[in-house]
Amino acid sequence: MGKLEGNVLIAQGGGPTAVINQSIVGVALEARKFPQVHRVYGARHGVEGILNEDFLDMTQETTNNLELVGKTPSSALGSTRMKPTEDQCRQMFKVLRAHDIRYFFFVGGNDSADGCRIVNDEAKKCGYELRCIHVPKTIDNDLPGNDHTPGFGSAGRFVASAFAGANLDNRALSGVYIGVVMGRHAGFLTAMASLAKKYPDDGPHLIYLPERTFDPEKFAKDVKAVHDKYGRCVIAVSEGIHDESGVPMVTKLMDSIEKDDHGNVQLSGTGALGDLLSAIVKEKTGIKRVRSDTFGYIQRSFIGCVSDIDQNEAREVGEKAVHFALWHDLDGSVAITRTGNYSVDYSLQPFENVAAQTRTMEDEFINAEGNNVTDAFLTYARPLVGSGFPRPHRIRAPKVAKILGWGDE
Amino acid sequence: MGKLEGNVLIAQGGGPTAVINQSIVGVALEARKFPQVHRVYGARHGVEGILNEDFLDMTQETTNNLELVGKTPSSALGSTRMKPTEDQCRQMFKVLRAHDIRYFFFVGGNDSADGCRIVNDEAKKCGYELRCIHVPKTIDNDLPGNDHTPGFGSAGRFVASAFAGANLDNRALSGVYIGVVMGRHAGFLTAMASLAKKYPDDGPHLIYLPERTFDPEKFAKDVKAVHDKYGRCVIAVSEGIHDESGVPMVTKLMDSIEKDDHGNVQLSGTGALGDLLSAIVKEKTGIKRVRSDTFGYIQRSFIGCVSDIDQNEAREVGEKAVHFALWHDLDGSVAITRTGNYSVDYSLQPFENVAAQTRTMEDEFINAEGNNVTDAFLTYARPLVGSGFPRPHRIRAPKVAKILGWGDE
Repeated sequence: MGKLEGNVLIAQGGGPTAVINQSIVGVALEARKFPQVHRVYGARHGVEGILNEDFLDMTQETTNNLELVGKTPSSALGSTRMKPTEDQCRQMFKVLRAHDIRYFFFVGGNDSADGCRIVNDEAKKCGYELRCIHVPKTIDNDLPGNDHTPGFGSAGRFVASAFAGANLDNRALSGVYIGVVMGRHAGFLTAMASLAKKYPDDGPHLIYLPERTFDPEKFAKDVKAVHDKYGRCVIAVSEGIHDESGVPMVTKLMDSIEKDDHGNVQLSGTGALGDLLSAIVKEKTGIKRVRSDTFGYIQRSFIGCVSDIDQNEAREVGEKAVHFALWHDLDGSVAITRTGNYSVDYSLQPFENVAAQTRTMEDEFINAEGNNVTDAFLTYARPLVGSGFPRPHRIRAPKVAKILGWGDE
Repeated sequence: MGKLEGNVLIAQGGGPTAVINQSIVGVALEARKFPQVHRVYGARHGVEGILNEDFLDMTQETTNNLELVGKTPSSALGSTRMKPTEDQCRQMFKVLRAHDIRYFFFVGGNDSADGCRIVNDEAKKCGYELRCIHVPKTIDNDLPGNDHTPGFGSAGRFVASAFAGANLDNRALSGVYIGVVMGRHAGFLTAMASLAKKYPDDGPHLIYLPERTFDPEKFAKDVKAVHDKYGRCVIAVSEGIHDESGVPMVTKLMDSIEKDDHGNVQLSGTGALGDLLSAIVKEKTGIKRVRSDTFGYIQRSFIGCVSDIDQNEAREVGEKAVHFALWHDLDGSVAITRTGNYSVDYSLQPFENVAAQTRTMEDEFINAEGNNVTDAFLTYARPLVGSGFPRPHRIRAPKVAKILGWGDE
């Protein structure tokens, strides 16, 4: 065991997830088991809190309440959108030193991993012994070196549940339904909509991802083909879809629609992309009933829609982070590896593997046409949404013979 | 017991709910216990299915599968947006007679109640003995004569869960959040957002309902006041908010914004109202981070977010409908009465009390300022979202004393 004595600091960066508090609680409860740890601090609002020494003494919190906080979505310590500059990372280090922080755990995405890297380098330069561990989280599942990341499974469960319901709604009142899902560069979260399918004719029938170029003409053709076949169509679209040159569709479509003299469209509109795609479908297919929803912020913090698998893993990455730092004297980024169907284990990878890197969907997960996912993705994704995922059921009763037959006149 | 022998027909009208199938299954399983019932038919896609004799023989379905269907959101028989004309109601009657339907159960809102009324009158005129029962359902809770309606509790649970999460998200990353909820004339569903509050500073901090005139100036003042106090603001808005002359805000604001030369806005935009209100807040308060979500279709069909109370009551209105018709030879609309905190009982009211009538929120449920609900509403609403409603928890750890105090420089 490492003998390095001092305090522990936990901070969070980036957007909240449904299970991020499990990681914070995992670190806090596990760290207190080590005699060389004096106090466990939590930084309020991430980097801002570190720069302002805005710390809570988590050592003076009950285990019961920490367990309850662990089950609460969105960061209980607060977060920030501020990305620390190299300079600020050096300042952060000064604060850590002042508070005798010897173990620093930063829960976040690739920017947080980069922050860890810089703080760690700075400590080495100054000969200040400090253990730095990056604890992964993101709903986008875009961190390299991980089978998947904590937060993704629960957000995916929300997306799959929303599409399962939207498919039932669309089946009862037919038409075209478009659901716009978060994910600018990685389509993983949008792809989770595929888990909503149970019966062969269930939606989502089409899935458009930022890993592929989006072609409005092809899109309209795809929708018409599905609508001709089933009399309805449910579509999952990533907010990040773009043209061949990488221009986001939401921008592109505005222009084309202006040129078509359909009038300007408010760019800031959170519903803009969904509305524009609806306009395309109506215009190019003549289908009248077209509806779109933009899942927006609900999908990352909706209370009560959590994957138990995700929750357990978020807790474990926090606990393992402590083990790597305190048992093994290591620095780095905790990574999840899949060891079975379904089981995982945890390792530590160099910050560089994660820092400022972005993972996108592997080709094997996207179909040849680029408008849906493959069975390989379904196999990969299914365990992550956890147990008790609700399943729809249909009436199988036979038809009754007509007597008047007006409909056939 | 009534001796009237023949077949049973179940149909559904209007928008789906999360528990509507419980009512259909309640009718189907209960009706089969009566010897005078030969067959139980289900009409596909409501009125359309009746006019086309598109019936399923529910008598040839297993109890197990019906129970599973009952737990599935959105109408398993399919629905329609078609509102039957008086003429079509007479045609519907002809179909019922052709199929020896003697018991007609129509699950829906006030239009369906009106349909029942006309079919029933027609049957009387023709001296054809027919029992007609309207079974209530709506997510808007806008049916007179009912304490509340099946479907409302589950939709309300979704809205409350979404705002509970949005409040946590907004607390972690501060700013202004606007959630737009369904409900053109009745604000009940929007008001359910109030159940998300746990701590005194929790959102939603402001709730705007169609029962009150919406004033953009007052709205901006309200938001600024909350933001000045808490550094953040969470707002629930009904899609139906309007000015003193009843013009919907979404229309009104477009104009004003055009006049302000902010450029045109696509009226069809599902996100339009949220975007427009965001623009107002930014413009009139100077607050930078303003976000809006439009809950759209997710709120009425999201799978896995169901109130157990709502589910049980939806089942019971179906069973009671059969009792009224088959034990007591009555026609009318089933109504839910609250008999305790919390318990309900069921009665039958004349179609006229419900048909084409709309209930809006009672004054005692809305605060004097018209920007929130009262404790009376919280007491009324709490039982309806059911058991196991998730509750957020906060870290209560004390602050750590600053050492460098840069923030205070």
